[in-house]
Amino acid sequence: MRSSMTPIRVGIVLGSDSDLPAVADAEAVLQELGVGYERRILSAHRTPDAVAEYSRGARARGLVAIIAAAGGAAALPGAIAAHTTLPVIGLPVAGPLLGIDALLAMVQMPGGVPVAAVGIGGGRNAGLMAAQIAALTDAELAERLARARELQAARVLEKDARLRLG
Amino acid sequence: MRSSMTPIRVGIVLGSDSDLPAVADAEAVLQELGVGYERRILSAHRTPDAVAEYSRGARARGLVAIIAAAGGAAALPGAIAAHTTLPVIGLPVAGPLLGIDALLAMVQMPGGVPVAAVGIGGGRNAGLMAAQIAALTDAELAERLARARELQAARVLEKDARLRLG
Amino acid sequence: MRSSMTPIRVGIVLGSDSDLPAVADAEAVLQELGVGYERRILSAHRTPDAVAEYSRGARARGLVAIIAAAGGAAALPGAIAAHTTLPVIGLPVAGPLLGIDALLAMVQMPGGVPVAAVGIGGGRNAGLMAAQIAALTDAELAERLARARELQAARVLEKDARLRLG
Amino acid sequence: MRSSMTPIRVGIVLGSDSDLPAVADAEAVLQELGVGYERRILSAHRTPDAVAEYSRGARARGLVAIIAAAGGAAALPGAIAAHTTLPVIGLPVAGPLLGIDALLAMVQMPGGVPVAAVGIGGGRNAGLMAAQIAALTDAELAERLARARELQAARVLEKDARLRLG
Amino acid sequence: MRSSMTPIRVGIVLGSDSDLPAVADAEAVLQELGVGYERRILSAHRTPDAVAEYSRGARARGLVAIIAAAGGAAALPGAIAAHTTLPVIGLPVAGPLLGIDALLAMVQMPGGVPVAAVGIGGGRNAGLMAAQIAALTDAELAERLARARELQAARVLEKDARLRLG
Amino acid sequence: MRSSMTPIRVGIVLGSDSDLPAVADAEAVLQELGVGYERRILSAHRTPDAVAEYSRGARARGLVAIIAAAGGAAALPGAIAAHTTLPVIGLPVAGPLLGIDALLAMVQMPGGVPVAAVGIGGGRNAGLMAAQIAALTDAELAERLARARELQAARVLEKDARLRLG
Amino acid sequence: MRSSMTPIRVGIVLGSDSDLPAVADAEAVLQELGVGYERRILSAHRTPDAVAEYSRGARARGLVAIIAAAGGAAALPGAIAAHTTLPVIGLPVAGPLLGIDALLAMVQMPGGVPVAAVGIGGGRNAGLMAAQIAALTDAELAERLARARELQAARVLEKDARLRLG
Amino acid sequence: MRSSMTPIRVGIVLGSDSDLPAVADAEAVLQELGVGYERRILSAHRTPDAVAEYSRGARARGLVAIIAAAGGAAALPGAIAAHTTLPVIGLPVAGPLLGIDALLAMVQMPGGVPVAAVGIGGGRNAGLMAAQIAALTDAELAERLARARELQAARVLEKDARLRLG
Repeated sequence: MRSSMTPIRVGIVLGSDSDLPAVADAEAVLQELGVGYERRILSAHRTPDAVAEYSRGARARGLVAIIAAAGGAAALPGAIAAHTTLPVIGLPVAGPLLGIDALLAMVQMPGGVPVAAVGIGGGRNAGLMAAQIAALTDAELAERLARARELQAARVLEKDARLRLG
Repeated sequence: MRSSMTPIRVGIVLGSDSDLPAVADAEAVLQELGVGYERRILSAHRTPDAVAEYSRGARARGLVAIIAAAGGAAALPGAIAAHTTLPVIGLPVAGPLLGIDALLAMVQMPGGVPVAAVGIGGGRNAGLMAAQIAALTDAELAERLARARELQAARVLEKDARLRLG
Repeated sequence: MRSSMTPIRVGIVLGSDSDLPAVADAEAVLQELGVGYERRILSAHRTPDAVAEYSRGARARGLVAIIAAAGGAAALPGAIAAHTTLPVIGLPVAGPLLGIDALLAMVQMPGGVPVAAVGIGGGRNAGLMAAQIAALTDAELAERLARARELQAARVLEKDARLRLG
Repeated sequence: MRSSMTPIRVGIVLGSDSDLPAVADAEAVLQELGVGYERRILSAHRTPDAVAEYSRGARARGLVAIIAAAGGAAALPGAIAAHTTLPVIGLPVAGPLLGIDALLAMVQMPGGVPVAAVGIGGGRNAGLMAAQIAALTDAELAERLARARELQAARVLEKDARLRLG
Repeated sequence: MRSSMTPIRVGIVLGSDSDLPAVADAEAVLQELGVGYERRILSAHRTPDAVAEYSRGARARGLVAIIAAAGGAAALPGAIAAHTTLPVIGLPVAGPLLGIDALLAMVQMPGGVPVAAVGIGGGRNAGLMAAQIAALTDAELAERLARARELQAARVLEKDARLRLG
Repeated sequence: MRSSMTPIRVGIVLGSDSDLPAVADAEAVLQELGVGYERRILSAHRTPDAVAEYSRGARARGLVAIIAAAGGAAALPGAIAAHTTLPVIGLPVAGPLLGIDALLAMVQMPGGVPVAAVGIGGGRNAGLMAAQIAALTDAELAERLARARELQAARVLEKDARLRLG
Repeated sequence: MRSSMTPIRVGIVLGSDSDLPAVADAEAVLQELGVGYERRILSAHRTPDAVAEYSRGARARGLVAIIAAAGGAAALPGAIAAHTTLPVIGLPVAGPLLGIDALLAMVQMPGGVPVAAVGIGGGRNAGLMAAQIAALTDAELAERLARARELQAARVLEKDARLRLG
Repeated sequence: MRSSMTPIRVGIVLGSDSDLPAVADAEAVLQELGVGYERRILSAHRTPDAVAEYSRGARARGLVAIIAAAGGAAALPGAIAAHTTLPVIGLPVAGPLLGIDALLAMVQMPGGVPVAAVGIGGGRNAGLMAAQIAALTDAELAERLARARELQAARVLEKDARLRLG
């Protein structure tokens, strides 16, 4: 994790505090990569004005991407995307319908207001996608991402080697 | 259809003008029953402020129910419900995923902001549900609804009789 | 919760006593809002005549909406709707097929006999929808609904504030 | 087809006259096998009393099985089964959701009131199932069923032979 | 339960002994109603010849219906139906895909060889459907079925009364 | 295509002659690769004995793989696999449920009797899989398969080049 | 559309030339916004080495995002993402399973290699998402995106106004 | 289990070490049948080059089939098949979406690069399918497979006998 001076580049928005565990992996990967982020609880249906206000101000405040985690009707990423042209990454949270409802509600947006979703419960990939976007203007971060990929590959190769010897 | 003096009781909101055919049956039944309605094209994602403004003012303008038709991510009824405590009736419009996405996006709302949906492509039932709500304060309308049900039953019985003779 | 003198405005009908937990949230919200309700166990398939009798008499007894909770084939809301023109709110109860069967069985009604469903397990929203309908003729209830929305928003904003400080 | 003196053994009930094509194969096979049948249009939601009356009288009128064809919420077979202990065969009719809604609405009945469904659009099998039930008390019909099976096998074998020679 | 002299009228066939719990409710209801039955473990894929032999001899041995319980590919009821014109009742057993695979594999039979399925895990209804078929030639059983329905209705009405008294 | 002296290595079995178009791509690729095959129409439900006989004799007749095409309940590949230990390749044929029923019915076999399925409507891949199995004992065929892959890659690269110039 | 001097910022990769119509909307929006792009046909399964080579070189060649369109198993975006840390936008192409297979195959990536998908057939949103990413380092493009949103809103408001007058 | 001199005929590849339990049944059956196998952890997305290298060398190293187990996007079997013309058997591993995503990602391959999948969690059948392929060039193995089938049938018959006596 980087110092507290790290500028905030990524917003993580949750529809409810019950979604906090769903974003833990996103937070972890952003911390590992030294990408500054902020967390907000903003509900598309319960506090729509706060969602609008936050989304409208996001670019000016220096954000480069917003991760929006939600389950069920999962209108949050779309509600954010309605108020900003920053890239919005949907993170579908599983619920009684296994998260299929949340995934579809996120991606099936009308033409003109895009949301791009990672997999159901895919917190780590949501964080990585945000970091990959941030890395477009941060060569050092791009380096760290590349090294993280190598490390990740090395870990698989190591497990493979151990299995073969095992 | 009643005279143009009929007060507007029901709002029919479409996410896009491509949804106009989907609400035709709703309009037809409201006309048959003499329930005044208005139609609006308001997009949860493209004109979110217009949705908010319309929804906030709906009760004061005399509406008793709002029918919201949308397909895909179908955030419209939820976006309306976020700004009013009038009953919002979701009308899922079929698309490439057969309307399942729209249905789930409408009903799977978080607790606290209700939307109640009729079936996929169920324009007639959306209109009837709105009329049934309006009839709670309009005894004559309640009468017309009851007679419409009787007529409807009679038509089935008549078809049955013809088939048996046939 | 209001006094026991509160007139009964909403009927909550369950297909089976095993559905009692599914309506607990609906009851809670009606109590919070001071909306009188009654509970009945009536089975579309096991006691169809009782369903018909109850539904036919509902308007005369002063009800303004009926919440019908059921799982599986979930014919209950439709069976009620067949005998009344009061608004019927379907509350799908999850089961081995996650409640998808119940949701579809409720909304996919033939044109002419509407049921409007809230989400699977959405007891709170079923109760709220009924209250919102009741509020059309009860300005004080409409006030309480508006305040409940504000309170609900405040709670989200407070959680957001705590998270940001946290 | 047998003479008009054939006693009526099977009831074919349709929720709507739009379901007539869906039962054509059922009718054809009953005619081929000489099983008398009657057709009725009875709607679980539009004419519930007629459904109840028909179902209650079915055994006394000599029926041994009832085929109920319906689409969407498809409450018809269950509504019939609620009023008779005759075997009820559900015939799901495909619609915008491909008939999955109708199939689930038919089979997912609560314990105590059975419906047994054939496949979506499976008119021929619905007719055969009814004939197989009728054959339990009609040895000649059982014979005809057995011969139909042999003929059916012979036709496949013949197509196989032609293909091999082809 | 009736005496051991009760003639065997219903065959209950399981694809595997792991399906025994799934047929417990079918057995219970047949015992309650005094319908004699036998249980067999016969696998469409592991002992296809035994399935064929059993099915071919079923009518001669006095059976009037066969309940076939299976999960997954659930070929058992179809494999039985291929060798008999007795009514075959499919009982889908839930598994990792919630039983949807088993249900579809049972009902989506080609025209000419019918299987009629009850709901997923619907053991009680499978037993009742078999009993209802057996009752076509057993007036006393028909009486017991009718009384069981009345008892069942009474139990719901009683629960309803108790709930109302609260 | 090779000469008529090509030995028969692959069996293509269809549940019905209506499945002939579904296997056309499988035939085409086997012809391109010079793999001898035979076609049979054999129904798991209408001619189960013919299926059993064919499957039992398949290895002795020199087959190395059997492609079984079917839709709906799609019991054919499993019925073949029940009578042989040759590799059975399921080819799901799309129908009203888009082929999902056929795919699941093919793969969800009980442990002990394997079927391996290609995609819905994947005739070409079914043929290739059979050829790849046949190539295990036919080095020239393995060569032809490798060359076909190269040709296939070259065609994509060529389209890519044309698009870039285009 | 901008001049041919526009630098290439976005790669559009298709698994097959049959996917060209699916990316037409993505191309259109990139042209409207003046974002340079290139198109490639690269198959994850037929030309995996070309996919790897292209993806590895993408950042060095100045790309900021890659749109990958594919149907069915839809491995293309994941195969690209395996070789680059640029943001990869999956564009699911509908097929016989309505595109659900493609959508799931795109988003359900293992943790560590992210793909973010837009809706099925959502070419316009894929293009917009790529443009929104490109706009992070191109203030003029960000301006054009903001104006496009305003224009889009204005068009909806205009349709709404016409409907109200209509 | 055979001696350690058994030549390696089958490759079992896992996308992650978390898939080891999913292949346990495949390993068990290969051991029972004396088919030599090797296990590798190779990730289509994290170590794509290792997948390519392994697959390209598989035939030369004497393998006759490769079992590839994966969940979610499940690109592994397709990634292997892209680099070899050996038969690739997909083994879908269940996850939050019940394995449906993995199954579809495996079978819905483009024409030209086949993968054949067994059922979700069908480790035993994956192992058997590999063994059946290996048996094409190993008459003794074919014998053992035939005996295993007989044993398997005997076990079902024995359970059946015990149940009948029971």
